[in-house]
Amino acid sequence: MAKKFINDAFLLGSEAAKRLYGMCVDLPILDFHSHLDAAEVAEDSHWDNIAQVWLGGDHYKWRAMRSNGVEERFCTGDASDREKFFAFARTMPRLLRNPMYHWCHLELARFFGIDDVLLSEDTAGEVWDRANAVLAGGLGARRCLELCNVEVACTTDDPSSPLSAHKACAADKTLKTKILPTFRPDKAHAFGNPAEYIKYLEVLGESAKVRIESFDDLLSALKNRHDYFDANGCKASDHGIDTVYFSEENSSKALNEAFKKVLAGCAPDARETQMLKSAVLIECAKMDAQSGWVRQLHIGPMRNNNTAMFKAIGPDTGFDSMGESNYAYALSRHLDSLSSMGKLGRTILYNIHPKDTQMLASMLGNFQDSECAGKLQLGSGWWFLDQMDGMKSQLEAVSAMSLLPNFVGMLTDSRSFLSYCRHEYFRRILCDMLGSDINSGVLPPDYELVGVAARDISYFNAKKYFKF
Amino acid sequence: MAKKFINDAFLLGSEAAKRLYGMCVDLPILDFHSHLDAAEVAEDSHWDNIAQVWLGGDHYKWRAMRSNGVEERFCTGDASDREKFFAFARTMPRLLRNPMYHWCHLELARFFGIDDVLLSEDTAGEVWDRANAVLAGGLGARRCLELCNVEVACTTDDPSSPLSAHKACAADKTLKTKILPTFRPDKAHAFGNPAEYIKYLEVLGESAKVRIESFDDLLSALKNRHDYFDANGCKASDHGIDTVYFSEENSSKALNEAFKKVLAGCAPDARETQMLKSAVLIECAKMDAQSGWVRQLHIGPMRNNNTAMFKAIGPDTGFDSMGESNYAYALSRHLDSLSSMGKLGRTILYNIHPKDTQMLASMLGNFQDSECAGKLQLGSGWWFLDQMDGMKSQLEAVSAMSLLPNFVGMLTDSRSFLSYCRHEYFRRILCDMLGSDINSGVLPPDYELVGVAARDISYFNAKKYFKF
Amino acid sequence: MAKKFINDAFLLGSEAAKRLYGMCVDLPILDFHSHLDAAEVAEDSHWDNIAQVWLGGDHYKWRAMRSNGVEERFCTGDASDREKFFAFARTMPRLLRNPMYHWCHLELARFFGIDDVLLSEDTAGEVWDRANAVLAGGLGARRCLELCNVEVACTTDDPSSPLSAHKACAADKTLKTKILPTFRPDKAHAFGNPAEYIKYLEVLGESAKVRIESFDDLLSALKNRHDYFDANGCKASDHGIDTVYFSEENSSKALNEAFKKVLAGCAPDARETQMLKSAVLIECAKMDAQSGWVRQLHIGPMRNNNTAMFKAIGPDTGFDSMGESNYAYALSRHLDSLSSMGKLGRTILYNIHPKDTQMLASMLGNFQDSECAGKLQLGSGWWFLDQMDGMKSQLEAVSAMSLLPNFVGMLTDSRSFLSYCRHEYFRRILCDMLGSDINSGVLPPDYELVGVAARDISYFNAKKYFKF
Repeated sequence: MAKKFINDAFLLGSEAAKRLYGMCVDLPILDFHSHLDAAEVAEDSHWDNIAQVWLGGDHYKWRAMRSNGVEERFCTGDASDREKFFAFARTMPRLLRNPMYHWCHLELARFFGIDDVLLSEDTAGEVWDRANAVLAGGLGARRCLELCNVEVACTTDDPSSPLSAHKACAADKTLKTKILPTFRPDKAHAFGNPAEYIKYLEVLGESAKVRIESFDDLLSALKNRHDYFDANGCKASDHGIDTVYFSEENSSKALNEAFKKVLAGCAPDARETQMLKSAVLIECAKMDAQSGWVRQLHIGPMRNNNTAMFKAIGPDTGFDSMGESNYAYALSRHLDSLSSMGKLGRTILYNIHPKDTQMLASMLGNFQDSECAGKLQLGSGWWFLDQMDGMKSQLEAVSAMSLLPNFVGMLTDSRSFLSYCRHEYFRRILCDMLGSDINSGVLPPDYELVGVAARDISYFNAKKYFKF
Repeated sequence: MAKKFINDAFLLGSEAAKRLYGMCVDLPILDFHSHLDAAEVAEDSHWDNIAQVWLGGDHYKWRAMRSNGVEERFCTGDASDREKFFAFARTMPRLLRNPMYHWCHLELARFFGIDDVLLSEDTAGEVWDRANAVLAGGLGARRCLELCNVEVACTTDDPSSPLSAHKACAADKTLKTKILPTFRPDKAHAFGNPAEYIKYLEVLGESAKVRIESFDDLLSALKNRHDYFDANGCKASDHGIDTVYFSEENSSKALNEAFKKVLAGCAPDARETQMLKSAVLIECAKMDAQSGWVRQLHIGPMRNNNTAMFKAIGPDTGFDSMGESNYAYALSRHLDSLSSMGKLGRTILYNIHPKDTQMLASMLGNFQDSECAGKLQLGSGWWFLDQMDGMKSQLEAVSAMSLLPNFVGMLTDSRSFLSYCRHEYFRRILCDMLGSDINSGVLPPDYELVGVAARDISYFNAKKYFKF
Repeated sequence: MAKKFINDAFLLGSEAAKRLYGMCVDLPILDFHSHLDAAEVAEDSHWDNIAQVWLGGDHYKWRAMRSNGVEERFCTGDASDREKFFAFARTMPRLLRNPMYHWCHLELARFFGIDDVLLSEDTAGEVWDRANAVLAGGLGARRCLELCNVEVACTTDDPSSPLSAHKACAADKTLKTKILPTFRPDKAHAFGNPAEYIKYLEVLGESAKVRIESFDDLLSALKNRHDYFDANGCKASDHGIDTVYFSEENSSKALNEAFKKVLAGCAPDARETQMLKSAVLIECAKMDAQSGWVRQLHIGPMRNNNTAMFKAIGPDTGFDSMGESNYAYALSRHLDSLSSMGKLGRTILYNIHPKDTQMLASMLGNFQDSECAGKLQLGSGWWFLDQMDGMKSQLEAVSAMSLLPNFVGMLTDSRSFLSYCRHEYFRRILCDMLGSDINSGVLPPDYELVGVAARDISYFNAKKYFKF
């Protein structure tokens, strides 16, 4: 290679872009949504080899390998770590233009100092040895956070969680990153499988010291845990939903009747499902508003599409994709209903289907008010859209239909400690876009003005918005 | 600033673009769809200060301010004009990459000669003083039209309107711009609120000297007013609809029965609504075809999403957003139904949801014929899509799926006399795209050929299409 | 013109792009989906004039002419060939930025050596004479295939076809291109018009020597013809569907009952249609898997929108456009159902509505496995999306959500022997994108790595995938 792939100017196509990136590069990271395991921070996890940290829980990489014809045993099966790493290395040259090609090489460069080779079957042996030497030299969970200057990382937690690891982190004065929980009650509205649901109610009730025998009991239990999370530093909730549920029918009587049916082991019908899920979303939103939390809605995936693989290896293993539904009206009614009650707090909406990006960006404007600048936000490109094209589309939509300089910016949404490079990736893409705009005259050549926007999006907006 | 933001080369990124823009810059403006108040032209309205003309009725700006956390009293409330202007000036730096940032600075430059500062809190005082001096010096409604070389401006009018201001304009020999009405019978198909609807029928019936007691009477009244508009220079109709309504059920008996129900104060059910709205659309289209008017359909917004604000300050105040529905089939049947009767005239379709841009561009081709070139048109990016990205997407869709050089081009869709800069904005974006294509070899370097297309889109196509 | 429009660097905007294109330019063409008539190859058709080969069966061009206000007699009517050609030539300058402007000039350059003029009314006479001289000099169907280095061309055939022309081609040692049939049983699931359907069953039954009196008989007949196609070199099937049909109801009893109803001349209701179409899709997929064929689904058009023109000149004459439906769930269930049975073979999905491009790209990943690299594919931009913007969007979606270097690449989908230029067009667009990425640092400057991807997409992937 004539020049290093990952170099200082990576993705910065103009002097303007470099100048703007220089204004952002040293800002800390506020990772307000991740799937990190707090216990790994508390214990400062270390790894024997790069396969463990790279391939151990990463369904993006498994999915890529399957798309390259790799057998399942090298993805989630019983092949050795080394074999798995080599299978992935063989896949790498087929990932050209995929975000993983950038992420992986950024991670090799930033954490392992490997920026002089491209990963492929030919270089797999060398990369394996060099990366493992760095791991042996002490690279662990905490060192990853420090290297990336992570000021805050929010995890994603079931309401029943005792948050023990979060408490351990909070008590540890040597830890520089704040590890905060996020309240994610997805299981509390998974009414579709009554048997599983009833089991979950046991767990939730136990944690809240509430015996859940009615819909009202469910809300009490959730409220109890909401308070507990609040007392443990939680600043945000999150909901993963396949579409937006809203029902004008919301009497306590109707809800308790439908809930009884579920408790009796009967799956609710479409109307009841709509009503129950709508009510859980509304009631949790009220709790969030009361606690001054930020609320996040992740809308739209269709999960577990491959029944055979679901039976074999369970959920979150790379068999999810974009669902599609027309939920603009339901979302409008949901937000309006909260707004009418004075219970619509700071809210971030994330969409998985790109057809919805601009619809959401336009929806936000219906409910902005003087609580704060950018009270409703369109989240950064999520999951399948968390790549260069998806990020740019999100930035374009927010620019055209909302106020880009008020955007709260990037998050990792990741299980891996190496994913913090995605913040660098985002900042480079953002600054390249802004720099290119200065050059083309779309933005004025005022680096103070444009630089403030870049810095706010990179750090300061999230700091204020989440009250970190 | 090293160089002025708004300068001769604004958005023109190549010599080719500049050359093409030079071929279009002096062409007059044909603004075939606006929300101007004809009375303001007749009376040649003047304003005391820039807040009145900029912020008085502009829900785009109110919405932007709310998104920046500005209190409602500075948007639509009782704050002073000066306070409102300063609140907007503070919002301006947060509008970077939003179309308003371009529109506002273009308006300051073109109407007020202010092109040496960017608007912000720091410069608000200076801009306030300089702009108000220009207003005091005589800038009013008519001077705005002259400065922009506006040859025709079409307003948007309820069928019951007496068109007095249009008559006054037509009679005034000193007025250089033709002010023409547009027939917009939205209230005639607002069956959802019978109480309001019955009140409206009184007004409409009064204007047409028809007592409306049946659906047939409604059509008679509309036909009467259609003729009246035609006699007063009207060349186009317009419909604002949340989705396309089409029903195969259209017997006079069924329509009159459903209409009777509405007259009795009962909201029609889904089937009846579909049937009634479908029939109004079809019957109005027949009238348009008979008069040789251009018909416009604005499809898709979801309005008044925020109930509390709707109750407080009413409609058209910045609480609308993109609806979504799958209306390709209904639209196909609607157009085919007219075409089969020989009643499909020149028609422009506007979509609010970007997912529909390419669908519409492909739909047009099903019904083009030898009445004229480009008989069916995809309208320029509308409302939330009336920005750089949206305009480019519309131009791309028309290019790929239809015939771009036959496109009738830009309109303001605005309530403000300062919005005529949007035609300049559009022409610059168009010429930049075409110039860039010449440079990349996508278009041949034949300025006669490409320049004719640019000039036709800027002026000549609309001239022929509307028979102005 | 300063420089030729179609020149060596056409659409190649960088040295990197030229270098990559140089690595692909000499690769043969594998055209795995076309609508060529095998008889025209067998007989080596020749044409009297360019209108016959250009305008004779090309509904894209008719549609463009109608959009330019050209009368129907110059499209499909009784005007002379020369008149038709001149009517199209007059339309050409209005096709700027339309893919036809590129395709037509590429075809004039590559087949007729005419690269020094742009087609317009002014040049029509010269082009007519020069092109006809080339045709008179011997340019025919086979010479077209040779000029473009077409190694394989797959046609599209009804299951009842005797494939006589394919046999003739296979037997002809002088023919350098392999002409293979594709099994397209669209008429076998056209249950909506029982009268037409019953007539078709006669034809199909005749060809299979099966008397079709039940749904099971239908499957037997299809299986019989599937085997016949397989024995005649068929490597792929294809289905044209307006949306994806899937039904959990699939008992032989229910299917045979619904089928009986159709045989009795009754159109099936929505539930029966869903069930019958779902079953045909599933059963054909099983046959494909057993034969090791590639399966293609072309999803989404809304056909014959213009009733009057359909009655006048029939289907496939330019009155089709994009349908829209939300079929993600049905497609997931369809694929999962096959996968669960172990009957999901190599499959290519094509969408007509651009909102579905990324949804499909994400869907693929749910069902990839070790049968081969890129077992499920998103097809290249189809029909209305078969243009620069559509191709780029497809490439972006595959890049971001799947593995671009495993993509099987371009096809013509055309009735015309001149359409082979579309492969050149695709390769230029692909190489320009990759070259631009090298320059911007999105891809590493490693021409071996990137060039292998470009060559694989241009030729080698399809070679392996289809087992040509």
